[in-house]
Amino acid sequence: VSAAGERVTAMGPGGEFDVIRELMKRWGSRAVGVGDDAALLSVPEGQRLVVSTDVSIDGVHFRRDWLTPREIGYRATAAALSDLAAMAATPLGVLIVFAMPTDFVPLVHEIADGVGDAVDAVHTSVVGGDLSVAGELSIGVTVLGACERALTRSGASGGDHLYVTGTLGGPLAALEAWRAGHQPGADARARFARPVPRIAAARWLVEHGATAAIDISDGLLGDATHLAAASGVQLEVELDRLPIVADSSPVAAASSGEEYELLVTAPSALDVRDFERECGIPLTRIGMVRAGTPELIALLNGKRVAPAAGYSHF
Amino acid sequence: VSAAGERVTAMGPGGEFDVIRELMKRWGSRAVGVGDDAALLSVPEGQRLVVSTDVSIDGVHFRRDWLTPREIGYRATAAALSDLAAMAATPLGVLIVFAMPTDFVPLVHEIADGVGDAVDAVHTSVVGGDLSVAGELSIGVTVLGACERALTRSGASGGDHLYVTGTLGGPLAALEAWRAGHQPGADARARFARPVPRIAAARWLVEHGATAAIDISDGLLGDATHLAAASGVQLEVELDRLPIVADSSPVAAASSGEEYELLVTAPSALDVRDFERECGIPLTRIGMVRAGTPELIALLNGKRVAPAAGYSHF
Repeated sequence: VSAAGERVTAMGPGGEFDVIRELMKRWGSRAVGVGDDAALLSVPEGQRLVVSTDVSIDGVHFRRDWLTPREIGYRATAAALSDLAAMAATPLGVLIVFAMPTDFVPLVHEIADGVGDAVDAVHTSVVGGDLSVAGELSIGVTVLGACERALTRSGASGGDHLYVTGTLGGPLAALEAWRAGHQPGADARARFARPVPRIAAARWLVEHGATAAIDISDGLLGDATHLAAASGVQLEVELDRLPIVADSSPVAAASSGEEYELLVTAPSALDVRDFERECGIPLTRIGMVRAGTPELIALLNGKRVAPAAGYSHF
Repeated sequence: VSAAGERVTAMGPGGEFDVIRELMKRWGSRAVGVGDDAALLSVPEGQRLVVSTDVSIDGVHFRRDWLTPREIGYRATAAALSDLAAMAATPLGVLIVFAMPTDFVPLVHEIADGVGDAVDAVHTSVVGGDLSVAGELSIGVTVLGACERALTRSGASGGDHLYVTGTLGGPLAALEAWRAGHQPGADARARFARPVPRIAAARWLVEHGATAAIDISDGLLGDATHLAAASGVQLEVELDRLPIVADSSPVAAASSGEEYELLVTAPSALDVRDFERECGIPLTRIGMVRAGTPELIALLNGKRVAPAAGYSHF
């Protein structure tokens, strides 16, 4: 019986179910209602369902020599939850798929602990999933949330102000250190390994009039082009204004992927002090929205620079 | 603009987004609302959300020399939708994750056509997903549905009758043929390659008093032990009664995995003729539910036989 009062449905014998039972034991009250053919959830009356799915693959999205298994599980789950934040949704639950070679089972126990950390951090739980053998390790995370008014990519209008949450450049600095064969600084490493889904920040933003948002997991400039395309507007980003970590630069921070901060538009100036007091992270005005053919204009010292494309594996 | 009247949000440039745009073109009106950080859906008032996720991996769940890419996509999606049928839910949408080596992109276009066939067959659509490079091909399918009253595994009581939908043994016969190096018969092959999620049948069953259900994707006997454990009952299955395909036997059909039929309990005899007229497939009474310590009793010619364990990769 879980903390939420719902049963964990009993399962019959079998190797796969032994692994699931072990995962359930580790998750404890952080797993709810698991064990039937599908999970049953209630979406609060008057709210819409928000849902997204993300896969993290060994050697593509993470490297086992860079992160601990627990960090790998945390990061995969937090990255998926970030998509709920981008829509200003409140989490209802997550579904977790572990696929792996059979000798990876002990590793998956530790990865599951990181999944538990991530669902705990946003007050939600694991409600289902799937388990499979595979040639390589991967973690699939489906996130479910609800909201009254969603913050989409398409709500920005000419005249809106452009903001970004948090401080940028840390994940790229960590990646560059690892790729150069040395350990990143503790701050940059933490920003890569322990991103915080901006669930609470997004709720503050939507309650204070935000019109559009996107999470900048492909890098600020790459994702800004998606917001510009979706809203049918021009975005002007002043790179000099970007809030960056000590060992970064405006241009590097603007193309730094693996950030789970929010790029947000709002029709009038936001009360940045109130946001920072409530949410505990910076909020920085970095540019403007203009009516016109969708385009991203990046300025450095008042001069236009060519934006680097978002990172793509294809 | 999709058939349902919702926009496909415009996306910026990038190789990954070119692949997504090509998939959207192939899906046409069968993809709705894709392109934001997360999908937005409405759960009908008074209904609960039903959600499940399944992964299909090359060489584990399918073999490219047995099925066409289109069949692989169909089967992965239909298998996931079968979990909604087992809960008597109506589909709201699916999320599709394609992970693959970069040179598999043309193959994924054809797999996507099969995904489209499967969502069409149950009158739903693709509402989101993810795309990644990977060392091996895998297809992740998250299914979302809604229902007023869910059919769980835990609702069976002593005295209930036990039924199964459809005809069993086809998938195992197909697998045995492939493993022996020859082509399976057309009927057995179709039952493996084109399983039909029993969405409409499940609705008939729940409307006519069914108390519990499970889909028998791990084989009838294996999944019956889960239903017995979840409901806290004994299940008595008379193997002689099983509806089987021509080239099978009761014992083989009872342990045949990859079946996407439903094992169902009901307190009084169901009108099998009305079911078959409405749903176009057989419904067969195959045993009884008895109060007592959870256990599965399989009888052949009135004598108890040891049930084979469900198939497990672990």
